[in-house]
Amino acid sequence: MAVTSEPDPTGGRPVVPGRGALRPLGLGEVRLTGGFWAGRQEVNGTATLDHGRAWMDKLGWTGHFETTARGLTAEPGERRGREFTDSEVYKLMEAMAWEIGRTGDGDRAAELAELTALVAAAQDPDGYLNTAFGGRGQRPRYSDLAGGHELYCTGHLLQAAVAAARTAGRHGQDSLPGVARRAADHVCDAFGPHGIPAVCGHPEIEPALVELARVTGEQRYLDQAALFVRRRGHRSLPETRFGWSYFQDDVPVRRAEVLRGHAVRALYLSCGAVDLAVETGDDELLGAVAAQFARTLERRTYLTGGMGSRHTDEAFGEDFVLPADRAYSETCAGVATVMLAWRLLLATGEVGYADVIERVLYNVVATSIGDDGRSFFYANTLHQRERAEPAPADREQPQFAAGGRVPWFEVSCCLPNLARLLAGLGCYLATVDGDRVQLHQYADAVVRTRLDDGRAVGLRVRTDYPDGGTVAVRVTETTGGPWALALRVPAWAEGALLDGRPAAPGTAVVRRAFAVGDEVRLELPTSPRWTFPDPRIDGVRGCAAVERGPVVLCAESAGEDGADLDALTVDVSTPPQDTPDGVAVCGRFTAPADGGWPYRSTPAPPAGEAVDPIRLVAYHRWARRGPSTMRVWLPHT
Amino acid sequence: MAVTSEPDPTGGRPVVPGRGALRPLGLGEVRLTGGFWAGRQEVNGTATLDHGRAWMDKLGWTGHFETTARGLTAEPGERRGREFTDSEVYKLMEAMAWEIGRTGDGDRAAELAELTALVAAAQDPDGYLNTAFGGRGQRPRYSDLAGGHELYCTGHLLQAAVAAARTAGRHGQDSLPGVARRAADHVCDAFGPHGIPAVCGHPEIEPALVELARVTGEQRYLDQAALFVRRRGHRSLPETRFGWSYFQDDVPVRRAEVLRGHAVRALYLSCGAVDLAVETGDDELLGAVAAQFARTLERRTYLTGGMGSRHTDEAFGEDFVLPADRAYSETCAGVATVMLAWRLLLATGEVGYADVIERVLYNVVATSIGDDGRSFFYANTLHQRERAEPAPADREQPQFAAGGRVPWFEVSCCLPNLARLLAGLGCYLATVDGDRVQLHQYADAVVRTRLDDGRAVGLRVRTDYPDGGTVAVRVTETTGGPWALALRVPAWAEGALLDGRPAAPGTAVVRRAFAVGDEVRLELPTSPRWTFPDPRIDGVRGCAAVERGPVVLCAESAGEDGADLDALTVDVSTPPQDTPDGVAVCGRFTAPADGGWPYRSTPAPPAGEAVDPIRLVAYHRWARRGPSTMRVWLPHT
Repeated sequence: MAVTSEPDPTGGRPVVPGRGALRPLGLGEVRLTGGFWAGRQEVNGTATLDHGRAWMDKLGWTGHFETTARGLTAEPGERRGREFTDSEVYKLMEAMAWEIGRTGDGDRAAELAELTALVAAAQDPDGYLNTAFGGRGQRPRYSDLAGGHELYCTGHLLQAAVAAARTAGRHGQDSLPGVARRAADHVCDAFGPHGIPAVCGHPEIEPALVELARVTGEQRYLDQAALFVRRRGHRSLPETRFGWSYFQDDVPVRRAEVLRGHAVRALYLSCGAVDLAVETGDDELLGAVAAQFARTLERRTYLTGGMGSRHTDEAFGEDFVLPADRAYSETCAGVATVMLAWRLLLATGEVGYADVIERVLYNVVATSIGDDGRSFFYANTLHQRERAEPAPADREQPQFAAGGRVPWFEVSCCLPNLARLLAGLGCYLATVDGDRVQLHQYADAVVRTRLDDGRAVGLRVRTDYPDGGTVAVRVTETTGGPWALALRVPAWAEGALLDGRPAAPGTAVVRRAFAVGDEVRLELPTSPRWTFPDPRIDGVRGCAAVERGPVVLCAESAGEDGADLDALTVDVSTPPQDTPDGVAVCGRFTAPADGGWPYRSTPAPPAGEAVDPIRLVAYHRWARRGPSTMRVWLPHT
Repeated sequence: MAVTSEPDPTGGRPVVPGRGALRPLGLGEVRLTGGFWAGRQEVNGTATLDHGRAWMDKLGWTGHFETTARGLTAEPGERRGREFTDSEVYKLMEAMAWEIGRTGDGDRAAELAELTALVAAAQDPDGYLNTAFGGRGQRPRYSDLAGGHELYCTGHLLQAAVAAARTAGRHGQDSLPGVARRAADHVCDAFGPHGIPAVCGHPEIEPALVELARVTGEQRYLDQAALFVRRRGHRSLPETRFGWSYFQDDVPVRRAEVLRGHAVRALYLSCGAVDLAVETGDDELLGAVAAQFARTLERRTYLTGGMGSRHTDEAFGEDFVLPADRAYSETCAGVATVMLAWRLLLATGEVGYADVIERVLYNVVATSIGDDGRSFFYANTLHQRERAEPAPADREQPQFAAGGRVPWFEVSCCLPNLARLLAGLGCYLATVDGDRVQLHQYADAVVRTRLDDGRAVGLRVRTDYPDGGTVAVRVTETTGGPWALALRVPAWAEGALLDGRPAAPGTAVVRRAFAVGDEVRLELPTSPRWTFPDPRIDGVRGCAAVERGPVVLCAESAGEDGADLDALTVDVSTPPQDTPDGVAVCGRFTAPADGGWPYRSTPAPPAGEAVDPIRLVAYHRWARRGPSTMRVWLPHT
């Protein structure tokens, strides 16, 4: 069965809605050329992909496909890795596809072809494909929908195939979409209106089916996605010890008021619901998810944009339960938040979603990756109280490991999830709507695209963002007549200037008949600033944080003679200051009387001497110089 | 093999050290006659024990012994309940033994004899006894020391036998000690100096072996306990995803600085270490555990005395990580804290340990049991943000269930643990040292004992504690000559009076030649008082709690029109007031602007009208009138 669509002429885009407020641009239209993210994208392509592949080979995760293809299975109970390791291989393949789309790297294309052949060989004649179920001595297909992750794995297979199909013009990769179509057809047969009336415990198949429908034009996939979304929320899955909300089976998607349960599951499901709503014109569903996400941002999100405060079930807590020192803020939830916010941005054009993406990118995504591209945080705490022992580099770590980035986790979804996001990151910078080009994220970049009327437009963006706030956009190509450049002014950027004139937070638009060489200049104020939490967030009451531009800062104490951050109190009457050594705040180290019962009849008196300015560093830089203690939220007088 | 010791002439005591500062009294010497705890003890004897038995029968936990006795096993993977269900049966048997010792109830004695026969029949000829391992199709004996709980179960068997032996004078129960001796001999054979060089993942065998050594005089049991304590802390168990600290295998017992890891495990191990230190005269070990416990109380304990802030691994968090809204504060950790504090009190005579016991009894133990004795909290949060749906009464609940007491948990250690503590609770009221009688806890009670020189002493205690603070101790028996009555003045009781004279917190002693009818009168101030947390406890910064006597209070909001406790701010400039309707504080309900990102450039301004006095209730009373929201820590201006 052939893929019906042509390769995406834009060079490949992660999300291609059939309608919406904004049109996304592809890897052939936007290219990061330098600065904060280009470096990370480079490391991703040169180090992270190979690192992931090497570990997946070493741990036998790629080998499972070979075993399955040969009709063999490991002894029951002896299969290496968790039951969803296939999905990690697929996410890595998706990352490779975007990377190939970005760079045209032939070696990587050969590697992806090799992996595709490996995967294809493991597919059953009826399209079923999973190395953990259905084989000899394994549990039967679909015998554990709540925990087995079969459709979740299939979803990631479909996503990898969508990426391959959309970037096929760059590397001639087309057999993966064929595998995916057979797998999707099987899912439709097995779970269609007359099939198993159930959903998977881990949402993911929903957005994947819609995206595959977009690539293939196959209505059946869209219908199946709609069926899955409609089925969820009726408690058809067995109750977990965390309740039905764990996998969002407590309340139907369009009736829920807020995201809840396992954060990544909730966010992936929301992505699928938005995709579906966009393709079917279901504005009620779109509005429901938008309202849930808004309430989640208002009550269940960390300052960093991180989501999920519970370690136990990797879940959202109740409203305002956002303790800094047990923040889970899972890396994959950060990736999924970008995915959801991007879909909502494209659907609605509301610039606040781009603010969310910026916040998550600089404070969750950038935090979770080591400089070497070979070490990761699974969870991203906002407060590290004890210096962690460095983890051994030669074996996988539990996801609860904290305090230092590690090479691999037993559940290692963070690596390929980060990799697929970073490889395609250029696509999140700009969009087009009619005769307007929107710039959502600021980085050194080149943009070459067409307005809806077909006119070519070229832009070169130069900035030292986020260190500095000046963004210079030069027109490099234009074919005459007026058009508009719309620049996001972040919500935090009170006092911004566009070409010298005040620009309120939101969108600043310049519309004119641009000439080649014209430059538009946005000045965003990046003085560090105090930020205070809603008083209902118990975990950080009486504290303030410092932000600078889009970057959340933290106090960090490394080395044996490091300061005792438990004893720090800052003075918020003085603004934080940019200094040559970084951002400085005034404060003191108190010395609470040690010993004795810690609950007293009078509040602890203010104590301690004012100290030299306390230096803060970017939160995403923490733990890069070895074990340290750290806190984002600083108690204030 | 016969039990060598005579039945305990005191009527039975939970801990009988060979030496120490204070001599514990038995169930024949101290009897609760009314008030706060006598009622709960009665409910325990009449409802809780039967409730526990009925569920253990219904779920097949008692039936496992019968199955094992018949040489059968459930199909692998089909055995009902977790692998440690035997231990729950043993804890219930221990509770029955203390209850029989307390009441002489013949029916209960017959039931215990029946259970004993059931258990005895399941014992292998070599003394091994476990219904989850070693049978046909089951995992082999000791094949999973980290997670299998085999020695943990054996430990509880021994503890039940110790209770039976010590109360044997009251009910003629002696075959359980025989079973326990065979089991202990087997453990010594299997894990002795030439046996398996390992420890159990869940400490418990350690205190059990020492206690059995105390009952039997068997040195070998003491030596084996010493070996187990010495072996732990060398990372001989496989690492868990929570690290070795989870089961205290990270640092040797005598080198540790604080309790860490799984709270119940840490506390049980500490009990064993104290027991061992006392019997072997190892003051270094005793001092090490005392120092660890002191630091734990200073940095890792909730206001309620609850321990363990992490749900994920039921563990202590780092120092000062004590969020109220995710407090785990496991019921069994409360029971274990009483066990450890009691051992340290007996060993050292330091009255602060009795303060700890009081705090835990009134605020963890009393909280965790429903009025009907048939419903329980597994975890005891200090802040309930959402009203919970009532749990179905007909099936077991996950231990993460919150917001309401439930009849049974999948892991249901809280019930029998509470039952064994409550049945023997009278023993924790008083001790003797030379010619001094110490009263540690205040309740309507009669005490009849002998001083160390043999003189008989009788006391009748009358009090409305903890509602009121007057404790009247009347001498009902004395044989002439001076002796002393030592009354604990709790650390919170500044301004206490003993017979009208100021008595500082600590111990107040009256020494004279008492006559029958003499009365000593202690007046403890029970005005409600504000309590403030150490500023390093992030989770409750800027909050105050109210305590009244030994009781922690809380704000509770029940019903649909209940107040929004998220919006409450109290005024700590006014002391809390006793009123006819309970304790009242002044405050206001603020109404934070809803909507939008919850992190702002200025702190939320004080808002809201002052409201009528806000009523507080005893924390242990919360959630007794149906689902509610609740908070112990109240944000203050």
